[in-house]
Amino acid sequence: MTKHTLPPRRFIKPSFEFLIEKKRDGGEFNKDEIRYIVDSTLDGDMPRHQLAALVMAVYFQNMSAQETADLTEEMMLSGEVIDLSGIAKPKIDKYSTGGVGDKTALVLVPLAMASGVVVPMMCGTEHDYVINTLTKLAAIPGFKGNISNDQFVAQLAKIGGAITAQTPDLAPVEAKFHELRKETATIPSLPLITGSVLSKKLAEGSEGLVIDVKWGNGSFIKDLEQAKQLARSMTRVGRSMKRRCVALVTDMNQPLGDTVGTALEVKEAIKLLKGEGPEDMKDLIMKLGMEIVRLAGVAGSTLSAKQTVQRHLADGSALDKLKELVKAQGGDPAYIDAPDKFVPAKHTRRLPAPKRGYVHTINAAMVAHGVHILGAGKNSANDKIDYSVGVSEIKKVGTQVKQGEPLLLIHYNDESKLEAALEYFRNAYRLAPKRPTPPPLVVERVA
Amino acid sequence: MTKHTLPPRRFIKPSFEFLIEKKRDGGEFNKDEIRYIVDSTLDGDMPRHQLAALVMAVYFQNMSAQETADLTEEMMLSGEVIDLSGIAKPKIDKYSTGGVGDKTALVLVPLAMASGVVVPMMCGTEHDYVINTLTKLAAIPGFKGNISNDQFVAQLAKIGGAITAQTPDLAPVEAKFHELRKETATIPSLPLITGSVLSKKLAEGSEGLVIDVKWGNGSFIKDLEQAKQLARSMTRVGRSMKRRCVALVTDMNQPLGDTVGTALEVKEAIKLLKGEGPEDMKDLIMKLGMEIVRLAGVAGSTLSAKQTVQRHLADGSALDKLKELVKAQGGDPAYIDAPDKFVPAKHTRRLPAPKRGYVHTINAAMVAHGVHILGAGKNSANDKIDYSVGVSEIKKVGTQVKQGEPLLLIHYNDESKLEAALEYFRNAYRLAPKRPTPPPLVVERVA
Repeated sequence: MTKHTLPPRRFIKPSFEFLIEKKRDGGEFNKDEIRYIVDSTLDGDMPRHQLAALVMAVYFQNMSAQETADLTEEMMLSGEVIDLSGIAKPKIDKYSTGGVGDKTALVLVPLAMASGVVVPMMCGTEHDYVINTLTKLAAIPGFKGNISNDQFVAQLAKIGGAITAQTPDLAPVEAKFHELRKETATIPSLPLITGSVLSKKLAEGSEGLVIDVKWGNGSFIKDLEQAKQLARSMTRVGRSMKRRCVALVTDMNQPLGDTVGTALEVKEAIKLLKGEGPEDMKDLIMKLGMEIVRLAGVAGSTLSAKQTVQRHLADGSALDKLKELVKAQGGDPAYIDAPDKFVPAKHTRRLPAPKRGYVHTINAAMVAHGVHILGAGKNSANDKIDYSVGVSEIKKVGTQVKQGEPLLLIHYNDESKLEAALEYFRNAYRLAPKRPTPPPLVVERVA
Repeated sequence: MTKHTLPPRRFIKPSFEFLIEKKRDGGEFNKDEIRYIVDSTLDGDMPRHQLAALVMAVYFQNMSAQETADLTEEMMLSGEVIDLSGIAKPKIDKYSTGGVGDKTALVLVPLAMASGVVVPMMCGTEHDYVINTLTKLAAIPGFKGNISNDQFVAQLAKIGGAITAQTPDLAPVEAKFHELRKETATIPSLPLITGSVLSKKLAEGSEGLVIDVKWGNGSFIKDLEQAKQLARSMTRVGRSMKRRCVALVTDMNQPLGDTVGTALEVKEAIKLLKGEGPEDMKDLIMKLGMEIVRLAGVAGSTLSAKQTVQRHLADGSALDKLKELVKAQGGDPAYIDAPDKFVPAKHTRRLPAPKRGYVHTINAAMVAHGVHILGAGKNSANDKIDYSVGVSEIKKVGTQVKQGEPLLLIHYNDESKLEAALEYFRNAYRLAPKRPTPPPLVVERVA
């Protein structure tokens, strides 16, 4: 038999109207078309009103797994892709869709580093009132959260980990998509979320990715079924791009851990790195940590993964790695050794339970909003973050309380902001006469 | 009981993102919101990419009858509304969604005028290759298709009818919507078509409207069910705006009448005004003419409506009215008296049937495309229209033909354009061994 070689197919650029109409009618874009859309967005050839119509059509008609993978890859290839092949160790990153009181990255990055895994972590922008990892780390005097790509690679080679801001030269077209989506009510589209997150994450050079998809009142994903779909979509695309991927769908229907804030959360992370701290966070750290060391191939079995995580928490090596990372990025490691150095807020105030009963639900988004009002977030670019404010000693869902017993402790500096914040904290809590069944922390594992 | 008077509700402007999200999730806009969208589009406050996302959301989520009526009214009120209350006679307009070979307006306007009905007709822009009424009338030397609103009203008062281009001061926001919709694949949205057409039509000052919704391969509505829905949507909105409205859903699955072109169609219209011409056009003129005189209240019963139409065709008064209208708008009425004055094309060519059989289908859009290629339409603003080209002696669906017998007669001037046009004409015809059942001309009447 003779093998015929076909000449390479030439792509004839369609009109943007044609592409919008195709998606409007439920059609599936081929790779050439996806590339053309991404390229035309990057160089501004595609007018924003046409991209907006296209994106809204995607919202309604969705994208196939192949289309989503193609979109992710083309968005990734629209900018720099970091090459970490010079580093011999396994390179695994972790991504969370974001949650209130979620300080897992502060624990997992040094824990993985201590376990021999290189963690090239770049953080995206915050959404709503969720405080991101870099803002928390900025509570440590001197810490620099925006190192260059060259510094990033050098630091990874030297100490095995880095946490920095995503640089604009990674997947630049993603930023354009994201800005448009914010203005056109098309953020909650699964293929677009997948493409947006993974195009940036996979440009960071990791070989694998552990994804924490959060669902609930403190996540931008309120619906469990949607969270499961996103977990599946992300792992599928990751795999199709030859990355090892595992996702956990986890509960975000109350704040994670005991604290919400910046320095307060860093202090809680330090406790967790010593094997102390609240149960829900310990549990989540264990589950995600085990996924990281298994995905990296550092541990083979579930048992050995568990032992690896436990060992590096118990022997202080994980905590040492946090110090190393902080120091490498200009921060003062003395704050890790002596968390009392963090300047506390001038005042504290207890939020008393209005009646006796059980904590039935806590609206995590409202807690976050209250903490934001106290000064933990910016309302405009010129605002300064107050690193001492936040809440601690959070009574979690299922806890029995007497009337007047504190539901949480508020740390604040500015009396004038307290009343508005209190209103959010009060409304966040709902008490009930019967003990509720708290939802499971990990709902589903997708591999 | 005491009647409490509530203070007038104040409308707090929502963000555009909120409005897009509301429609995305299937919400219904209230009148304040519709007005805000229309106003913000008119003054350019709403960015085009946000309007594009909103319009695509409307495409998928539709609009209620009330929303559509509110949109129509607000778009109409965005510009000038012509006041014809000074004219005592009934004022009825006719609107067709557009079809290939559709010269009904050329017959119905003078026919209605002769029956004592005032017809304030403004024509919109063409779409695809459908030639509009004004382009056909432009075949008459001197005819002016863009008179001012003042001239329009004066002419209506004097002779009872006018056919002119829609002026930009009528429903100006509609033009903005329409341009955006063309570029974003959102033309085929029933509420937006309804709003677009009726906001302009009802700004012309008529008290009633006879609507001809065409469906089939020569219409932009290919689906019968959609045509029926549009007919219902339009009549409902018209009524809610206190206008008398009736719609006929009619067949557009083959060219209407014997001719497609400009001068060729004017000549066919003159025949029809003398009670001659092809059966399908005679039938359509009768049905639509009866609707106009009944809606105007000129005729009470079906029988009297039929007699009114027949009388004004038989006694030459309708033909006289066409001459009056042409003269009033600067055209040479001698062409109506002696249609031979229209300069014929230099050449004619028969399209022979490739085999014997029955005409099974004629793709009207392809016929229109062929005629466009011959020079009956413009490709750019600077192109000149060739008024002599077109096709005549069209063999209609159901006609038996021998091999080689002409299917239609092509009128052309430029040999170099013939081949491409012929290709369209050939492909438009499908012959079959058995006689097909032609679809009914009027499918449904919606009142």
